[in-house]
Amino acid sequence: MPDRSLLFPAQEYRARIARLQAGMEAQGLDALLLTSAADVFYTTGFLTRFWESPARPWFIVIPRAGDPVAVIPVIGAELMGRTWMPQVRTWDAPDPRDDGVSLLADTLSGLVGETGRIGLPMGLETHLRMPLADFEALRSRLAPRALVDATDCVQRVREIKSGAEIEKIRASCRIAARAFDRVPDFAVAGRPLDNVFRDFQIALLDEGADWVSYVAGGAGPDGYGDVISPAGPTPLQHGDVLMLDTGAVKDGYFCDFDRNFAIGPASDTARRAHAALWHATQDVIAALRPGHLASDAHRMLCDSLRRHGAAPSGGRLGHGLGVTLTEWPSFTPVDDTPLRAGMVLTLEPGCHTTDGRVIVHEENIVLHADGCEVLSPRAPATLPEIA
Amino acid sequence: MPDRSLLFPAQEYRARIARLQAGMEAQGLDALLLTSAADVFYTTGFLTRFWESPARPWFIVIPRAGDPVAVIPVIGAELMGRTWMPQVRTWDAPDPRDDGVSLLADTLSGLVGETGRIGLPMGLETHLRMPLADFEALRSRLAPRALVDATDCVQRVREIKSGAEIEKIRASCRIAARAFDRVPDFAVAGRPLDNVFRDFQIALLDEGADWVSYVAGGAGPDGYGDVISPAGPTPLQHGDVLMLDTGAVKDGYFCDFDRNFAIGPASDTARRAHAALWHATQDVIAALRPGHLASDAHRMLCDSLRRHGAAPSGGRLGHGLGVTLTEWPSFTPVDDTPLRAGMVLTLEPGCHTTDGRVIVHEENIVLHADGCEVLSPRAPATLPEIA
Repeated sequence: MPDRSLLFPAQEYRARIARLQAGMEAQGLDALLLTSAADVFYTTGFLTRFWESPARPWFIVIPRAGDPVAVIPVIGAELMGRTWMPQVRTWDAPDPRDDGVSLLADTLSGLVGETGRIGLPMGLETHLRMPLADFEALRSRLAPRALVDATDCVQRVREIKSGAEIEKIRASCRIAARAFDRVPDFAVAGRPLDNVFRDFQIALLDEGADWVSYVAGGAGPDGYGDVISPAGPTPLQHGDVLMLDTGAVKDGYFCDFDRNFAIGPASDTARRAHAALWHATQDVIAALRPGHLASDAHRMLCDSLRRHGAAPSGGRLGHGLGVTLTEWPSFTPVDDTPLRAGMVLTLEPGCHTTDGRVIVHEENIVLHADGCEVLSPRAPATLPEIA
Repeated sequence: MPDRSLLFPAQEYRARIARLQAGMEAQGLDALLLTSAADVFYTTGFLTRFWESPARPWFIVIPRAGDPVAVIPVIGAELMGRTWMPQVRTWDAPDPRDDGVSLLADTLSGLVGETGRIGLPMGLETHLRMPLADFEALRSRLAPRALVDATDCVQRVREIKSGAEIEKIRASCRIAARAFDRVPDFAVAGRPLDNVFRDFQIALLDEGADWVSYVAGGAGPDGYGDVISPAGPTPLQHGDVLMLDTGAVKDGYFCDFDRNFAIGPASDTARRAHAALWHATQDVIAALRPGHLASDAHRMLCDSLRRHGAAPSGGRLGHGLGVTLTEWPSFTPVDDTPLRAGMVLTLEPGCHTTDGRVIVHEENIVLHADGCEVLSPRAPATLPEIA
């Protein structure tokens, strides 16, 4: 089998490790411990859908200097062996007596002296993907070494995408754009919404997605009640606004954008809402710059929606994007993360229409020093109608 | 939109809660705190692909007596409101200042006295799906209440499937079986393996899967090197053994079984290995009973493989199945979980062939008092050949 593990040259991964190590130096960390699928993929290139099985933990250890070490179940040895990773240690998981804790503790204590500090992500939008009891045992084994929060260290690195990463996200966006172009072929009045969701996933695969990690949406007169529900069997009806939103994956990188369609002629309400969303997005694409905060993006979207006559929905109106469907920061009034060149972000304004319904629009952008570049081929300014 | 949240009548969920509460009583727990997608879905019926976004935590609190409480981000209020859940509390997530911690602490401290014990899963095959720093803050807020391991309490309940759950898994198995029947249409010599993976996912959707959470496999002469790698662009060749393995999802329930195919005439090695795997599986289907341990199933599979002339591969040779692709127990030499009637399990024997290659076979069964019922329409005894 060809080496799909090397999605990027080893140099790309070495640069990522070097940036993480610079952050560790600045924060006084002697090692990083990573456990999530995203962090493991980001640092190693280890790409597998096997994360769907919660049975086994996986560990990456990055010392402040020198090469990282993978400490993983033996079932992953062959695939990890085809990545750039110079050191791979394995155990026979799952093992209820000791599921990698001793091997991980030995690895960490071999790299970090007793007065050292080991960082792992503990903050917003992070999880520890290992059993909590094993983490407590690890902490005891490593004492007096300190286990401290390294969310900032990891997020400040991962949030700036390399040119190669941006090309991967662009490729995912193009796949989704071609699938969206096919929606009028199957999203016709009378077709049950769950079949439309299936057809859309098939179109995404047919257009080149490796897999489809996320499809959501909704349909109803002048909008939909929420945007995270699975589809039911209700047929599309004339007068509905249909929204489809996807996180399709190519080479481990996500897109995350949506499109709205009127089934039959659009109502004035739906047309006006869609136009306001489109123009608000356009305004922010034109205005957003490095140095703005995440909360500024939220305010700019809300202000522009109001200028265009729409009532902003609650919730976050955009977020980071990359090796997971959503990444930090969040475009809310309370997220003060500075936006920087190289960030890939979604703009996701929503507005209320009637009867508790909303319409939501979403595009994917990359922020450059001189402004935004749109990665998701731009939606039409006028709500498209499916005859 | 019709009520897809009520995949089962409320009575099904009430019965699950009652069984959990009986376990809590036995273990001296005053409340359970659940955070994983699987535990939330199991107790509430809240089904969404939105878990793909790591941005927000979700909490279910089950007191020792009385109704459970959902403590969730407001974006899920509408969907959770359509489930059976009698109490739903929300906050506007993500909020870096307090991402539900206060609301959750208030909910728990309102239900559990200061000398009380709150259980959450901390053991093998579990994760805490909330930021670790927020968990530490929660623990401080709840002191002197104890937070203790409740893995056993949750796993002993979830591992016994109701009749309604078994029908859901059977439906997923049937969808996958129909998709496997179509593999000869697209898995032909010369077709790149990554296209075969796409075609197979399309077939699964076309046959009725809501989504495809897992496809893996491999192809090579007399077998494959591992079973968790994504597909590369290498074309299938005459003499390859192709394996496809899927966790397709219908109504939130998984199947997890595989099929092998010879591309062109099968070699003697491949044919013999497949026959040994099939017969070993058949032997265990005939012999496995409640009262056996998970380690017994492992031993029985290995013994039978050897009797049929095959060398067992390492690793686990089967596991639980249900609302995730894999559940406990694990058929390894070191897992002494007792097997009980109502468990849905996979039998997944593998054997070495040549040059570090393996062939793996997998079926899904439900264990009844009088033996096994096969849920995945049984593979053919002879390795099928695709001309």
